[in-house]
Amino acid sequence: MTQPLFAGVELGGTKCICILATGPDDVREEVTIPTTRPDETLPAIEAVLDRWRDFAALGIASFGPVVIDRALPEYGSIAATPKPGWAHAPLAPRLGQRYGVPIGFDTDVVGAALAEGRWGAAMGLDDFAYATVGTGIGVGLIAGGRPVSGMTHSEFGHVRIARLAGDSFAGTCPFHGDCCEGLASGPSIQARTGIPGPELPSDHPAWNTVAHALAQLCHTLVLTGVPRRIVMGGGVMLGEADLFPRIRTRLRESLAGYIETAPLADMDGFVVPPALAGRAGPLGAIVLAEQALAATGAP
Amino acid sequence: MTQPLFAGVELGGTKCICILATGPDDVREEVTIPTTRPDETLPAIEAVLDRWRDFAALGIASFGPVVIDRALPEYGSIAATPKPGWAHAPLAPRLGQRYGVPIGFDTDVVGAALAEGRWGAAMGLDDFAYATVGTGIGVGLIAGGRPVSGMTHSEFGHVRIARLAGDSFAGTCPFHGDCCEGLASGPSIQARTGIPGPELPSDHPAWNTVAHALAQLCHTLVLTGVPRRIVMGGGVMLGEADLFPRIRTRLRESLAGYIETAPLADMDGFVVPPALAGRAGPLGAIVLAEQALAATGAP
Repeated sequence: MTQPLFAGVELGGTKCICILATGPDDVREEVTIPTTRPDETLPAIEAVLDRWRDFAALGIASFGPVVIDRALPEYGSIAATPKPGWAHAPLAPRLGQRYGVPIGFDTDVVGAALAEGRWGAAMGLDDFAYATVGTGIGVGLIAGGRPVSGMTHSEFGHVRIARLAGDSFAGTCPFHGDCCEGLASGPSIQARTGIPGPELPSDHPAWNTVAHALAQLCHTLVLTGVPRRIVMGGGVMLGEADLFPRIRTRLRESLAGYIETAPLADMDGFVVPPALAGRAGPLGAIVLAEQALAATGAP
Repeated sequence: MTQPLFAGVELGGTKCICILATGPDDVREEVTIPTTRPDETLPAIEAVLDRWRDFAALGIASFGPVVIDRALPEYGSIAATPKPGWAHAPLAPRLGQRYGVPIGFDTDVVGAALAEGRWGAAMGLDDFAYATVGTGIGVGLIAGGRPVSGMTHSEFGHVRIARLAGDSFAGTCPFHGDCCEGLASGPSIQARTGIPGPELPSDHPAWNTVAHALAQLCHTLVLTGVPRRIVMGGGVMLGEADLFPRIRTRLRESLAGYIETAPLADMDGFVVPPALAGRAGPLGAIVLAEQALAATGAP
């Protein structure tokens, strides 16, 4: 049986990756273009997709906030954003009209989560979370095989957390100060220590507060979606190898035996790094395309 | 068209309500029996259901923890619990075998949430949360029309929260101390003040810490499921009328404008009391029955 061919667009804040593939082992072409203004970037995306016309479906994994409520006329667009020109940019409506194929649409972090679930560190699981910790903190929570989202997409990075005893750093989130993102994102580490995260020594005490904040995020995820695994990536996680064992220890302490599942009993296999690394973004767009085609009832 | 007739069982910690109904306006019979030991209570339930044999489906809304993973042989049973005799009690398997009808099964709080969404304070909404604040704190989060749960059911009551500045009460949760339940449940109010919640004056400062903790729970719910409404009930909520406005004010402050949705702009309509009151439990079992019948593809 021939695998259908999918096109994907991962629209990031600084660059956009267009990909044509059936899956990770069969990527036909990948084109990176800069994300500037929509009146430049969208035509550039279309110039690539125009060449690829024989795809069965298209997936779009976009930076947020995006409108994912299918009942709204703005479905598939960027929502209100300070990013110049991008507010209300009609991504899915415009590309859907142009190509006439099923369109999958979600945030980049949900796309990456779905890719890790399809081909990566959460392969085969219906219940898992994928968190990326970098300039910001984003989480895709998959429960029962579906991304958890309501009238708009989840924003777990901005959950407020129980502070580490004695830590009074105000945090860097412009909205919440010491929400999880305000305490554990890359910029917050630099603001707290004066040292960029990648250069901060492993034994610097600031890593304790970062590990604590991320363990609290995991505590919330465990009690929310009851995942079988939490995949953690992004620049902060991948830049400091000691973070994983520290988060696992603090998560075990924080849960205090409350939820007893087999995956939680094996903490080393519960909080894990991603398997797809930088490929999760564009491959996420491919999964969104695949799901859009499946939703049409096509074989 | 004739409405199908459903049987429901709300199994609570102290009493069990059996209900025969097509919906809230057509309850044919309701029988309450004490919850003692399974070898007494299950036969008593069966004696009631035996009389009702002409129901199209059966819903069971049970105290937790329960096994909701359909891939497990224990699906539909009580999980490990300190409640004498009830660990591993096979509710759905036993009643399903006896009556040969479709069986819906979930926690009592998810059932109550579904009932508020079907006929109550969240009627017509696909994305909402229902929280009950009493002896414990339970939350049913409905996203995209489905309860959010993963390998087991959510336990939002045990989310750890950012503490109110200056509050150092240790909390009463035997697992976590100052998780939300440990700070805002009825027993925690009494432990903190020495006064039972229903007798605590409205101007007692302890209500600030309770309102803060519950607003933090709502903050987490908003960023998790992005509900269109949060319905809050239970003895603590219903016993102190000032809690609603206090929670709304604190939630607005805590979110700090981060998520801007139309429902959040109308905070009085966003955090609301339940509409079904004590009927949500047994009616929840009826919704579970209704969903189980619908899942079979029956008209």
